[in-house]
Parts: sequence; C-alpha cells; structure tokens
Amino acid sequence: MPLDAVLSRIDADLPQATERLMALLRIASISTDPAHADDCARAADWLARDLRSMGLDAATRATAGHPMVVGKGGDAGPNLLFYGHYDVQPVDPLDLWARDPFDPAIEDTSKGRVIRARGASDDKGQLMTFVEACRAWLAVHGTLPARITMFFEGEEESGSPSLVPFLEQNRAELRADIALICDTGLFGEDRPAIVTMLRGLLGEEVTITGPSKDLHSGMYGGPAMNPIRVLTNVIAALHDETGRVTVPGFYDGVPELPETVAQQWHDLNFDAGQFLGEVGLSTPAGETDRTALEMIWSRPTCEVNGIQGGYTGAGFKTVLPSKASAKISFRLVGDQDPLEIRRSFRKMVRDMLPPDCTADFAEHGASRAARMSIDDPAFEKARAALSAEWPKPAAFVGCGGSIPVAGHFKQILGMESMLIGFGKDDDAIHSPNEKYDLSSFHRGIRSWARILAALSA
Amino acid sequence: MPLDAVLSRIDADLPQATERLMALLRIASISTDPAHADDCARAADWLARDLRSMGLDAATRATAGHPMVVGKGGDAGPNLLFYGHYDVQPVDPLDLWARDPFDPAIEDTSKGRVIRARGASDDKGQLMTFVEACRAWLAVHGTLPARITMFFEGEEESGSPSLVPFLEQNRAELRADIALICDTGLFGEDRPAIVTMLRGLLGEEVTITGPSKDLHSGMYGGPAMNPIRVLTNVIAALHDETGRVTVPGFYDGVPELPETVAQQWHDLNFDAGQFLGEVGLSTPAGETDRTALEMIWSRPTCEVNGIQGGYTGAGFKTVLPSKASAKISFRLVGDQDPLEIRRSFRKMVRDMLPPDCTADFAEHGASRAARMSIDDPAFEKARAALSAEWPKPAAFVGCGGSIPVAGHFKQILGMESMLIGFGKDDDAIHSPNEKYDLSSFHRGIRSWARILAALSA
Repeated sequence: MPLDAVLSRIDADLPQATERLMALLRIASISTDPAHADDCARAADWLARDLRSMGLDAATRATAGHPMVVGKGGDAGPNLLFYGHYDVQPVDPLDLWARDPFDPAIEDTSKGRVIRARGASDDKGQLMTFVEACRAWLAVHGTLPARITMFFEGEEESGSPSLVPFLEQNRAELRADIALICDTGLFGEDRPAIVTMLRGLLGEEVTITGPSKDLHSGMYGGPAMNPIRVLTNVIAALHDETGRVTVPGFYDGVPELPETVAQQWHDLNFDAGQFLGEVGLSTPAGETDRTALEMIWSRPTCEVNGIQGGYTGAGFKTVLPSKASAKISFRLVGDQDPLEIRRSFRKMVRDMLPPDCTADFAEHGASRAARMSIDDPAFEKARAALSAEWPKPAAFVGCGGSIPVAGHFKQILGMESMLIGFGKDDDAIHSPNEKYDLSSFHRGIRSWARILAALSA
Repeated sequence: MPLDAVLSRIDADLPQATERLMALLRIASISTDPAHADDCARAADWLARDLRSMGLDAATRATAGHPMVVGKGGDAGPNLLFYGHYDVQPVDPLDLWARDPFDPAIEDTSKGRVIRARGASDDKGQLMTFVEACRAWLAVHGTLPARITMFFEGEEESGSPSLVPFLEQNRAELRADIALICDTGLFGEDRPAIVTMLRGLLGEEVTITGPSKDLHSGMYGGPAMNPIRVLTNVIAALHDETGRVTVPGFYDGVPELPETVAQQWHDLNFDAGQFLGEVGLSTPAGETDRTALEMIWSRPTCEVNGIQGGYTGAGFKTVLPSKASAKISFRLVGDQDPLEIRRSFRKMVRDMLPPDCTADFAEHGASRAARMSIDDPAFEKARAALSAEWPKPAAFVGCGGSIPVAGHFKQILGMESMLIGFGKDDDAIHSPNEKYDLSSFHRGIRSWARILAALSA
C-alpha cells in the first residue's frame, strides 16, 4: 500500500486532526485526584468513540481504577500493540498558567505554533499522533498495514495501579510482536529518538508524627520535638556532599555505562549548559563526578517532589505541628531492586527517629529500570523511517523519566517495546503552561505512517 | 465601694456574660487572612457597641490594618490601661475540629464545662473577663473603682503591624499608671499566675528558588538543584546535636537564670512528664542540658512553624519544584537583639546556598524579651487579690509565648505591665478544638473585680 497518499492525506487533514486533539484536551482527566474520576471516564469514552468512528473495534474496559481503552483493526501484517495514556498531571500551581489548562489554544511563539494545554504533550498529543496516522491509512486504503491493537491507560500519572492486573488478565489479547509506546521526546529540536534505556521509579511518601496534636510553639517549642525538624533532618541526610544518595545499598546493581554507549552519547554533543540555561540554571547539581546526560539517562537519583507541614497559608502562625510529610521519588537504573531500596529507605528513616516520633509510609509505585533488545530488526526499520521524516537522523537514546509499562510488557507479555515520541525539552510537561509543538504533532503523525509502512514491508 | 455585691452580681450574671462571649466568638476575626478583614471589623464594632452599652465612652479607631477599640470610664482612682486582642488564629486543619470553630458551644467534659470555639481562650474569653468585671462594677455601683481605658487590638495574631504607630500617635491618651494584660494562663489547674518574664519573638519566612519553573523530576532530577533539598539542608543545620541553635551569635545576650528565680521555679514542682504526656510525648527534646521549664520560660528556641514545596495534594507528582519555603520563629530572652539575629540568620542561609539558588525573606515581627519590675506595689496587691479567689496562692512565673505589647508599653508609654490570665495548658490555643473552661471565665471575672478593688484601695 503506497505511503505517499497517506502522507498527503495527513497533511490535508491536519486542521481536523488538531480540532480532535483540542476536544480531548478539554477533558480534565487528572487521574491522581479523585475529584476528576468522572473526567477520566469521559476521556476514555471519547477515545473509544473516536476509534469506533474510524471503523475500529473499540471499547472502554472497566478496572478497579480508571478505565482502559482497547481498539483493534487490520487483518494482515505484523501484530503491533500501541500504548499511550489519556490521563494528565495535576495543574497546580494554577496561578502560574497564562490560561485555563483545560481550555486549549493554538498560540504563535517565537519558535513556531504550539498547542497550549495540560496534556498537550504528555500524553494526549502524543497518543493522537498514532491515532491520526491510522485514521489516514484507513481513509486512503480502507484498512491498516498491520494488525494493530491500541491500548490506552488512564492511570499513568498516578502509578498505574490497574495496569499489571489488566495485562495479566488479558495476556492473549494484548500480546503482539512488538509494542509501540509514544510518551517520550525528540533529542533536541529536530532529531528523532528511540529510547532504549529507561529508568525505574520508586515513589515513597513519609509522614512524621511527633506531638499528638498541633501545639503553640511558644508554649511547647524546645521540650516538644517538632516533626518538621525530624523530616528535614531525614531529607538532608539522603545525599552526601558529593551528591550521592546515602540510602544503604542504594547503588547495588548500578552498572557503569558500556564504553560503546558512552561514546555514542558523547557524539550526540549534548549541551548541558543550554539544557540547564533554559530553566534558569547554570551549574550542574547532583553527583559531582558525572555528566548531566549520564545523571539523567544512566544514574539513579533521589528527589523530594513535595513537602508540607505546619501553617503554610498567608501570614504567620506560631504552630508546632503534630505532623509533617514528604513525597520522595527514586529513579532507578540497571538491576536496582525497588523493593529492596524501599525497605532500606524506610529502615534508614526509622533509625533516624528521635524518641516519641513515628514514621508512616505510603507507596506510590515501584518499577525496575528497563533496557531494550535493539537487535530486533524492527528497531533499525523504525530508525530508518524516522530518519526519512526529520532533518536529522534518528538516534538510540536513554530517558530520564520512568515508563514502567515497557517493563510490564516485557515481563508479563514477553515482548519488547519501541519508545518513540515527539515531545521537546521545553514542553513543560508536569509544569504550568504545558504545550506541544504543532510541528511535533504533524511530523509525529507522518512518522507513525512511515513506521507502519516500514514494519509492514 | 464594697466588693461583695460586685462578686454576687458576677455570679448572678454568668449566663448572660457567657451569652455575650458566645456572640463575640461567632465572628471569624482571623487577622492573618485578608479574606477575614470584614470579620475583624465586625468584632471591633461589636466590642465598641458592648462597651458603650455599659456606659463607657468607646469607639473603634481606624489603622492601616484592622481597627483598634478604645473605651474609657471611671473618674477617680488609679489610672489603668487594660489590653486584650479580639483577633484569632487561623483554624486549619479544619477537619480536625469536632465542630465549626465559629459556632461556639458549652460542652460538658470530664474536667468540667468548657466553651468550645476558636478564640474562646485566646483571647476573646480572656478579654471578656475584664469587660464583665467592669460591667458588674458599673451595675452595682454606677461607676468604676479606677480610671480605666480598655484597649483592644485586632492584629495580635499577625504580628501587630499597626500597634507601635498607634501607641506613638496616642501616647498621652493611653499612658496609665500600669497596664493590665489578659492573654496568659494559670500555672497548672488552679494556681493563678502573674507573668514577669516574657520571651521575644522573631518571625522569618524564607523562600528558596532554584530552577525558573517547576520541572519533571525524571527529566531534570540530578543536574538541576532541588530547592526543597536546599531548604531542608538549611533547616537541618539550625540546631546542633545537643539541641542548641546554630545561628552565629544567637546566644549573645542570653542570661543565666538568677539563683533565686531558679529556686522559686523549682518550688513550683513543674511536672514535665505530665506536661509532655498530655500531648503524646514522653522525652523532652531541645537543649539536652536544660529542664523543660527553663526551655519554655528562660531559654531561646527556634522552631519551624510551616514548610511547603512541590506537590502536596493527593497522590503523587514527580515534580522538581522551582520554589520551597518555610516559616521559622525564634523565641528570644534577656538582651537578645531580634534585628541582629535576623541579619545573622539571613546571612547563614545565604552562605549555605548552592550555585543558581536564591533566598528571599519576608519578616513577620521582631520583638525583644521583657522582664517586669515587680517592686511596683501593684504586683503584690494583685498577687494577694488573686490568692483570695483561687484554691492556690498566686505565683510570679515566666511565659514561653511572646506578648510583644508589654515591651511596647514599656518602651513607648513608659509603664510596666501586669500579665494575668486564666487559660489552661490544655486549652488548645492555636490548635483545633480550642476551649476555655467555664470556671476560668467565671473566676477570671471575679479575679479582675478583686484586683480592681485591691489596686483602688
């Protein structure tokens, strides 16, 4: 089936494709916030309806959490599973958004036209690149060039609690020759990339309790232990002065980068100064003996993602609070065992507790790092297809973020994943004023059309 | 003028007095929150109206912030200034209140009847003890036994920004022989106390900024410095392992307790175990070489009253935030200079900043410690009057809280203050479920009637 007509169709249909994405972006599908559960269901319904309108066999599928969407089409060629997620991050701090995060708009910027909204890049815009590529194939040829199952999750931003049970219950249906995942970025401005190394993620929430109730700091300050002080002592102890994480056993299973990979990354000419400069920084923090690219792609890290305790409103309140809590995440590489690190972290915290203080923990996901087997010929086919679409040839890269689904596909469904996405470093995913370049959206759709052709050839 | 008839009148009028207090407690006069500015004005109006209804010459007086209330009565006898504050602390966390904090109620408890509401003890219930004592004098004798000026502030819980300018502009009107301040507590359950030592208070808010916007912790964690980490390093460094505050020069001007005072405090048989046990603690924290009573009354301390940064909602968000902030208070004693300590604290924080991080500071009050001249005979007269009312004789004590107004009265108006109050340790001021014992209210009113008689004799 000729590709050129599909690419032309994509170009002609871009305004309508953009309108469809905007409709999906209007749904405030924040999965981590129970107040938005209905919005998550609405986003799933919207997607299932859209896939059916293309002629696919699609439906939402209930889980203990937010629904999955599964849509199937094509009756010949390789068997492909495509994954994306329709849920989005929370939007706070809302006052830093220049517009309503769920009222998307096309904006002209100095770097070109962008679609501005929460989820524009992560991951609604990205998942729709694949949907639109399939729509164009169907419109031009009446069928798909491969047997395709689209699989959309609604809990990616909240630890994917329903994913593993769903994969286990639907192994036969979801298993394919290879999985395609669209939740990553370009390397720089215009070099497409296939992610072959992914960090794992351990999410922990710790709450320190001291006094049984909030106290007046003038009446009790001194003899009563302040849980904020205990918590800050714990967090301050998580790194040593060279930037290494101090949790006992943390570096067990952390491999050194193979020389060939290190050389390949070196050849990418990553500009750490520019990378940091775009977010107002100039000096790399973190491990003092590692490059910024190493730290992001191949080194484990620990970050505090949130902390709160006591009075945080306007003005001042001389309270000595009963509780203080923090959300802490660990990015994992190589063979680091998230459950071992969880145990070690919790023991370290408990060992630091002064008398009368207790620590409670909540878990927010635990996934291992993943490394793809790139000797599968699909990887080189996809790389060539991407290189044909973009100004620069495609690269195999690492990824600082954690995309646990790739590990689950490997372990539960026994298949490799190709992670290909079109986000940019300045997309502000997880931040106020998230955007997706219209060029990412357009070229992303064309890229998938080319990849489908290449994999089916 | 005979006292007995006044005391009888107080006993007979207690139900009506309680009703009046409940009306005042229904006004949500949270001074630190701009959303409650109208409520503060309503509370001031209520008080001025109430004083006028007793026959006093009373009015609200505008300031740059919340209004003052000034009411005058009596034409002979000593000249007394009575001070209280009608504003209250914020009520969060609201979910820990068993009832609406501004819907007061009388509750039966195992320790007797209490008035439950925000401000019941701090300070509406307390200031109304004096108002009711005067009402009874006026009802029985048609006049007051002294020349009395009542002076109510509405910004005590938010650093009293308008207090000093108001005192400076109204020196002649407000200056008296002595000030009476009702914002302190009993010692234990039934021993009345006159506070003769007050700690000062320095309030600081520090905001650390790292990246110019919130980042994805997977994309930037490692090379981008996390401001929560910087802030927790700063806070963890504020105390050494013996519990001493490490701000350079912090202990300059901190006196050792005179032997006689130490002996008097020792004789109070303060039960540190019970004091801590009531709030779920068993082991004194703070300076390891000091007793709990010393730490509260005569040693300087540093407490973190609030901390926040990153995502603090439900679930998890892998953000690396741009900012993190903390509210920190220092309690001061002796000749410690709050402005010197502010400078030293801010320098210490700035000296700890890694590259690319900045610190911004906001001030929330700075007052020195105060020590009363108890050789003024008014102190012994008041002590005898209190001892006549309560089961145990009155004591001269210290106070952990900070009541800067006493220092301002001394410095600006040139007069001593007698701090007499009837709060209890378990009143939960500044906490959820604040209460004031009905017995504190009743005996408090009777106490002021006795003190007025004693001072006029």
